[in-house]
Amino acid sequence: MLKIGVIGVGTVGTAVVRILHDNKEMITARAGREVMVKRGVVRSLQKDRGLDIALSTDPYDFVNHPAIAIVVELMGGVEGPFDIVKKALENGKAVVTANKALLAYHRYELQELAKEVPFEYEASVAGGIPIINALRDGLSANHIESIVGIMNGTCNYMMTKMTEEGVDFDAILKESQELGYAEADPTFDIGGFDAAHKLLILASIAYGIDAKPEDILIEGIEEVTQEDIAFAKEFGYAVKLLGIAKRDGDEVELRVHAALISKERMIAKIDGVMNGISVVGDRVGETLYYGPGAGGDATASAVVANIIDIARSGRHTAMLGYNKPLENGLKLKSTDAIVTKYYLRISVEDRPGVLAQITKLFGEYTISIETMLQRPASGGYANLLFSTHEAKEGNMKEVLSAIESLPFVSGRPVMIRIV
Amino acid sequence: MLKIGVIGVGTVGTAVVRILHDNKEMITARAGREVMVKRGVVRSLQKDRGLDIALSTDPYDFVNHPAIAIVVELMGGVEGPFDIVKKALENGKAVVTANKALLAYHRYELQELAKEVPFEYEASVAGGIPIINALRDGLSANHIESIVGIMNGTCNYMMTKMTEEGVDFDAILKESQELGYAEADPTFDIGGFDAAHKLLILASIAYGIDAKPEDILIEGIEEVTQEDIAFAKEFGYAVKLLGIAKRDGDEVELRVHAALISKERMIAKIDGVMNGISVVGDRVGETLYYGPGAGGDATASAVVANIIDIARSGRHTAMLGYNKPLENGLKLKSTDAIVTKYYLRISVEDRPGVLAQITKLFGEYTISIETMLQRPASGGYANLLFSTHEAKEGNMKEVLSAIESLPFVSGRPVMIRIV
Repeated sequence: MLKIGVIGVGTVGTAVVRILHDNKEMITARAGREVMVKRGVVRSLQKDRGLDIALSTDPYDFVNHPAIAIVVELMGGVEGPFDIVKKALENGKAVVTANKALLAYHRYELQELAKEVPFEYEASVAGGIPIINALRDGLSANHIESIVGIMNGTCNYMMTKMTEEGVDFDAILKESQELGYAEADPTFDIGGFDAAHKLLILASIAYGIDAKPEDILIEGIEEVTQEDIAFAKEFGYAVKLLGIAKRDGDEVELRVHAALISKERMIAKIDGVMNGISVVGDRVGETLYYGPGAGGDATASAVVANIIDIARSGRHTAMLGYNKPLENGLKLKSTDAIVTKYYLRISVEDRPGVLAQITKLFGEYTISIETMLQRPASGGYANLLFSTHEAKEGNMKEVLSAIESLPFVSGRPVMIRIV
Repeated sequence: MLKIGVIGVGTVGTAVVRILHDNKEMITARAGREVMVKRGVVRSLQKDRGLDIALSTDPYDFVNHPAIAIVVELMGGVEGPFDIVKKALENGKAVVTANKALLAYHRYELQELAKEVPFEYEASVAGGIPIINALRDGLSANHIESIVGIMNGTCNYMMTKMTEEGVDFDAILKESQELGYAEADPTFDIGGFDAAHKLLILASIAYGIDAKPEDILIEGIEEVTQEDIAFAKEFGYAVKLLGIAKRDGDEVELRVHAALISKERMIAKIDGVMNGISVVGDRVGETLYYGPGAGGDATASAVVANIIDIARSGRHTAMLGYNKPLENGLKLKSTDAIVTKYYLRISVEDRPGVLAQITKLFGEYTISIETMLQRPASGGYANLLFSTHEAKEGNMKEVLSAIESLPFVSGRPVMIRIV
């Protein structure tokens, strides 16, 4: 029998215990032996979880316990779990985690520590979708050209609702919080940070890129309005929070932001709280993976899959999928060098000459306009909506700053990238 | 260095050799050692394939060659490759195959033979989509409730074209043959047999069901007309060839047929030659896998992924994903016991009393109608189009046979199941 200790017996941890119990016969057949959670670490022993496992409050309780073969880390945080997981690996325990923040900061150190023992983390990206599995093993023959992912269910739910129901951002956020789809402090989700953690993990598997959240472009969905969504609809786009990793020669761009994406693409058809990740490989072309990105059972499904894999094969694939550094040292592209199309919304005083001055500025910064719409706003103002041809992020930032300082421009211009 | 022999150096085999050559640096990093095709078996030595490998025409050439560690079987057929692969396994060679027909007939014997050596077959189902990987490893914590797959690109291309362009089946078939999407003899694809082979492989991983193609319901898309597609559009359905595996208590139903499926479902949004497979697990809910189901490079991507996996981990997961029989011996449901909704098209003489007699028959066989349309046809005939509530396949067969024998009914009624 393979014995497991779970650090953090909350929603996901409880679901892990229950799946291993409820689906025991099948899991034993697949794993080739019995697998069972024997111990758990919790914050408080007061609460009755209705589980038949030994509980303690010491997170170091079983990192050196001879009976425990696999440590499952579900406590959250970065430095706390890093220290615990490190000790477990040093003690020869296999580790399974769902902790994306831990990996966003420490995945390369963990790969070093996990050279001799399995370290698995399927649940850290896109919950129940086996995307680590697919990218690391299923697509391993390919140079990865790009990854485009809807990796945050909260944002996708909100963008879908805004699109379908025409409701404003603030109202949808409130509703999402009431439904439990958004946290009381929603910044981590709607600011793009959650998606960025996941993107960094995928980018390491695909490209061997060692970047941290603070190194890459991260924006959220907070500025998206009904006007932007109307524009997107009119020109055949959906609005999504996307995580994007893209290779360009020996550079890789990594970015998370709201984006307009053609409705024709499979990934644009993913609505509601669901997640999806499109991966383009040089040989296979595009493949896409769709499913629930969160939820206790879906996340636990991925955790238990890792446990079964460790139990049955004793396999040991290098944590990030490569045993030697990947070829030709890819580097992170600087944010200013990113090239994409843009959608812009600029609020201006509704008087003659305004459009001419703005378009003149675009010309000076070599930004070329593809479409333009003017919509009346209240109080003598109008909204100018543009989409551009491909332009450099650096130029775009400069032109937007120049436009913002024009006397007839009201507020900060809003920019959404087009993918 | 890990040396490989490829039996069958056609489109896929050549792509395997090229990927291992072109992506060598990256593959070496992932596999942890160099991997190379050293020998190939071909039908004729006349053709210059431009490859730097030793060729012979004897398929038994390297099943016992000491230098070859992995035998890649890409020759096609059933009994021929079975004998060769058997010998390779007996000689301790790892085997990788893309041969769905081989597995549709011999997967359980092969699993027995491959107890001590890896036998991998990712490319046998849905080409470049790592669905074996996902189902066997990624979703292993789940009882699988259902699998619904678009697993034949030819059929999906034809159904998409018929829907988008309003062209008749025969014209699209001709065009597909000219484009190389359909074979000169298209029966294997459009008759549903190709999809059935793939479905049987997936059903073994999910349910441990040992069925052969002749045991299950297999129908094709040959009878779908523009009239059916118009009906489907009107009621919010897409028309697809689907492979379906579904658990119902201790029975599993397996079937391949044209189907009407709600346009709202992700799988209904998969168009053109692309493949997609939706899997519902008891814990994870629905996940879906999308990508190219055929093509030399896409198929080779899956073959090489298997090779890398064998090279890097020396892993050995049981071929079908379980080391002991799966629990509670699931049985194949008899075709007549399948319950689903139906769409029916019946050509009748356009005169009073006809509809009454047909609906009376429905009542006698306890089949309840949900919608009904009558459309005029040529020569004094009309087409009656029905959709039913859920009914038993056995009852449906009987009522259709009774309807066919009515004097005013012309030709055989056409039935398409609704999913």
